[in-house]
Amino acid sequence: MDVRLIAQAARSASRRLGTASSSVKNEALLQMADALERRTAEILQENVEDLAAGRRKGLSAPLLDRLLLDEHRILTMAEGIRSVAVLPDPVGEVIEGWRTTEGLAIEKRRVPLGVVAVIYESRPNVTTDATALCIKTGNAVILRGGADSFRTNRIMAEVLTGALLEAGLPGEGIQFIPSTERTVLVDLLQLSDLIDLVVLRGSESIQDFLAEHCRIPVIYAAGGNCHVYVDRAADLGQALDIAINAKVQRPGVCSAAETLLVHKEVATQFLPQIVRELTDRRVCVYADEATRSVLPADAAQVLPVTEEHFATEFLDLEMAVRVVDGFDEAVEHIARYGTGHSEAIVTRDLDAARRFAEEVDAAAVYINASTRFTDGAVFGLGAEIGISTQKLHARGPLALRELTSTKYVVFGNGQVR
Amino acid sequence: MDVRLIAQAARSASRRLGTASSSVKNEALLQMADALERRTAEILQENVEDLAAGRRKGLSAPLLDRLLLDEHRILTMAEGIRSVAVLPDPVGEVIEGWRTTEGLAIEKRRVPLGVVAVIYESRPNVTTDATALCIKTGNAVILRGGADSFRTNRIMAEVLTGALLEAGLPGEGIQFIPSTERTVLVDLLQLSDLIDLVVLRGSESIQDFLAEHCRIPVIYAAGGNCHVYVDRAADLGQALDIAINAKVQRPGVCSAAETLLVHKEVATQFLPQIVRELTDRRVCVYADEATRSVLPADAAQVLPVTEEHFATEFLDLEMAVRVVDGFDEAVEHIARYGTGHSEAIVTRDLDAARRFAEEVDAAAVYINASTRFTDGAVFGLGAEIGISTQKLHARGPLALRELTSTKYVVFGNGQVR
Repeated sequence: MDVRLIAQAARSASRRLGTASSSVKNEALLQMADALERRTAEILQENVEDLAAGRRKGLSAPLLDRLLLDEHRILTMAEGIRSVAVLPDPVGEVIEGWRTTEGLAIEKRRVPLGVVAVIYESRPNVTTDATALCIKTGNAVILRGGADSFRTNRIMAEVLTGALLEAGLPGEGIQFIPSTERTVLVDLLQLSDLIDLVVLRGSESIQDFLAEHCRIPVIYAAGGNCHVYVDRAADLGQALDIAINAKVQRPGVCSAAETLLVHKEVATQFLPQIVRELTDRRVCVYADEATRSVLPADAAQVLPVTEEHFATEFLDLEMAVRVVDGFDEAVEHIARYGTGHSEAIVTRDLDAARRFAEEVDAAAVYINASTRFTDGAVFGLGAEIGISTQKLHARGPLALRELTSTKYVVFGNGQVR
Repeated sequence: MDVRLIAQAARSASRRLGTASSSVKNEALLQMADALERRTAEILQENVEDLAAGRRKGLSAPLLDRLLLDEHRILTMAEGIRSVAVLPDPVGEVIEGWRTTEGLAIEKRRVPLGVVAVIYESRPNVTTDATALCIKTGNAVILRGGADSFRTNRIMAEVLTGALLEAGLPGEGIQFIPSTERTVLVDLLQLSDLIDLVVLRGSESIQDFLAEHCRIPVIYAAGGNCHVYVDRAADLGQALDIAINAKVQRPGVCSAAETLLVHKEVATQFLPQIVRELTDRRVCVYADEATRSVLPADAAQVLPVTEEHFATEFLDLEMAVRVVDGFDEAVEHIARYGTGHSEAIVTRDLDAARRFAEEVDAAAVYINASTRFTDGAVFGLGAEIGISTQKLHARGPLALRELTSTKYVVFGNGQVR
C-alpha cells in the first residue's frame, strides 16, 4: 500500500479545509454526528466482528470493554462531536498585533497545522474525537487505529467521510490507513514533507517505536506518574479527601496519583488514617519503613515499597507511600520519578505553595486540589485529544488551540530595508 | 567523552537557573558582556589560530570572514548581550488565567524549557547570542559549534561561564561540547531524558543528519526559498523597490527572495525594467520563455530558467523569474517550491491581498513590503536565535518567548472530582 498517496490526498484536502469558514466546518461536524446516529446498525455490525475476533484472540475483559460499542456509546460519540461544533473556532484568531517603527502592521494569526496523523490503540471513540477536533481546526486527519478495533474504525471513518462530503468539504480530509502492519506505519512516519504533526495516544512500547522511527514532530499524549505531597502545614482533612480522590476516583487514567508523599511531622497523625481509608477501598499500599513504623500492628495489606514501585504508573488500585524529611525531599522525589503530568501539594503555608508551583516541573501543578482535574473539558478548554507531558508546542490538555500553528501577516505600503 | 555527564550537569544547573530572579539573570548577562570586552585579547588569540587552521584547510574568503573576530565584532557581541539584558523577562508571565465551575483558579504560566542544545556551524557570534537568550530565559545551554571556530567558541564559552559564576549562578548552566566529532554529536542527540530542545542553525546536510539521528525535539532555523509576487493590480513602482530590495539588500540571508513571479497582465510593462535593474546590480537572472519574450533583444545575462532554479535557495546574486497566468498560479508555485519562510505580494487589490495572506502557507506573509523584514529585532521581538519555518511550537523568529514552555498552576481549597 502506498501511504504516500494517502498522505498526498490529505495534504491536498488540507488546503481547502484550511480556508473553509467556521460555519461550513461546524455544519460538517453536525452532519457527522447525525450520520453516526443514522448508521448505528452498520457500525454495531462491524463492532460485533471486532469483538468476536478479540474474544478468539483472548483479549481481557477490560480490553473487550474498551472495544465495545452500543447505541448509548455511539450516541455519546455523536454528542461529543456536537459539543466540538459549538466551541469557538481558533483558526483566524489574531493572537496579537502591533506596528513597527517602519510602519509595518504585524498580525500574529492562528492557522491550521495542515495534516495531523493520529496513532491510537483500540478505543474507537478516538476516531470520532480526533476527526472532530482536526476538522474543526481546518486540518486534514490521518487515522491509524489499533488492530483490535480495525473494522469498527474503518466503518466509522467511512461514515465521517461521507458526512464531510455532504457538507461540501473534500472527503480526502479524513484518511483511514487500511492496514495495521508496523511496516506501513513506519512508511507513514517518514512523510515529513506531507504530515505536519503526529499525535500518539498509546502505550510505552509504541512510544519507543515512534521515537525510533518517526521523522515527523510528535506529541505524546502519554502516561502520568503523579504524586500527592502532604506538607507539614496541610489541612489533614483536605489531604485525606485529595489523596483518596486522586487515587481511587478513576485509577486507570493518567491523572490518577500513584505515590503519596507525607511530611515527617504529620506522619504519625496522618498515615494510620489514610492507609486505613485506602485499604478500605481495596487499594494495595506499598509503604516505606517510616510509614510502616507508625501504622498500627494490625494494618492490613501494606507491603514494603521498592524503587520499582516509585517508578511505576500503576493505573490500578495500588499506591506507593513515603515519608519525606521535608519540602525539598518531596520536590526531589517528584523530579526523580515524576513524568511531568500532574502534581499536587496539600498545604496552608503560602511559601510552600509558591515554591511547589515554581519548582515542580509538570504540565499541571495543584495547590490543595486533586490531580484528577487535568482534563481539557474540566479546565474549560472544550474537548481534548489527550494530555501532553512534553514541553514543546503543547503542554497539558491538547485541545483545539493546540492543533493550530501561527503565521505572521505583515501589511506595508512599499517598505524596504 | 561522556556527553551524558555534560548533559546531566546542565540539567542540574537548569533547576537553579529556572528559579533565578530576572535581576540576577540580567546581572549575569551584563557580567558576560563586560568579560568579553575585558578578555578580548585572549579571544582574538584563539581566533587567530582558528583562522590559520582555516587558511591551511583552504576555506573560502567568505567562510574565513564569517570566522574572523576583531575588537569591533567582539564589542558588537557584547552589545548584543546587553540588549538582551534590557528585554523583559518572559519567565513567570501569566499568559492567561480563569476560574473553573468547581472554583479552581487556573493560571497558565510561562516557564523555562530546561536544557537547550544549540548546534551551529562556524559563526562565533552564535555562541554569545544563544547563551544570552538561554540564560535570560532560565535555561541551561549546551553549545556544539562547528570545527572551524572550535578554539574561538571554546574560549568564549569559558569567558561566559566565568561571568555566570561571578553573578552567583551555576557555571554548569553553560556547557561547551569539547569535540566536533559526529559520533559525539550522535550521542548527544540521544539524550531525550536530559535535553528538552535542540536548536539547529545549519546547512541542509546537517539538517538531514539530525532528522536521522535526533531523538530530541528539534527546531530548525532553516533556509528560505522566498518569493515576491507582482500582482496585476500592483503599484509597479513599489513592486520594483520591493523586488530589488528583497533580492539584493543582503542576498546571503534566508529572508532574501529567490524567485520573482509576475502576473501576465503587467509582464510587458514591468519585466523589462525590473530585469534591467537587477542585471545592473549584477544579479544573474534565470527567466522563463514568457519573460524572455517581452525583454528587449539586447537584454544581458538572462538565462533560461529550469525547475532546478525554482527549487534553489541561491543565497547569492541570482534570481529566477516567471510569468504566471494569474493569482492562483502564483500561489500554486509558492506552495510547490516555497520553504514556508517569507512570501510577498505586491498589489493594490484588497481581495488579492486578503487571499494571499490566507492561502500562502509561510511563517511570514507580506503585503506590499519586502521579505527582508523577517527578523526578531525588526519585528520588535528583541534578539533571536534564528527563524523557524516549522509549524510546531515556534514559527518565525525564535526570540525569548519561543525558548519557554508553559505550566498550568491550579489553586484550590480542597476540591476533588
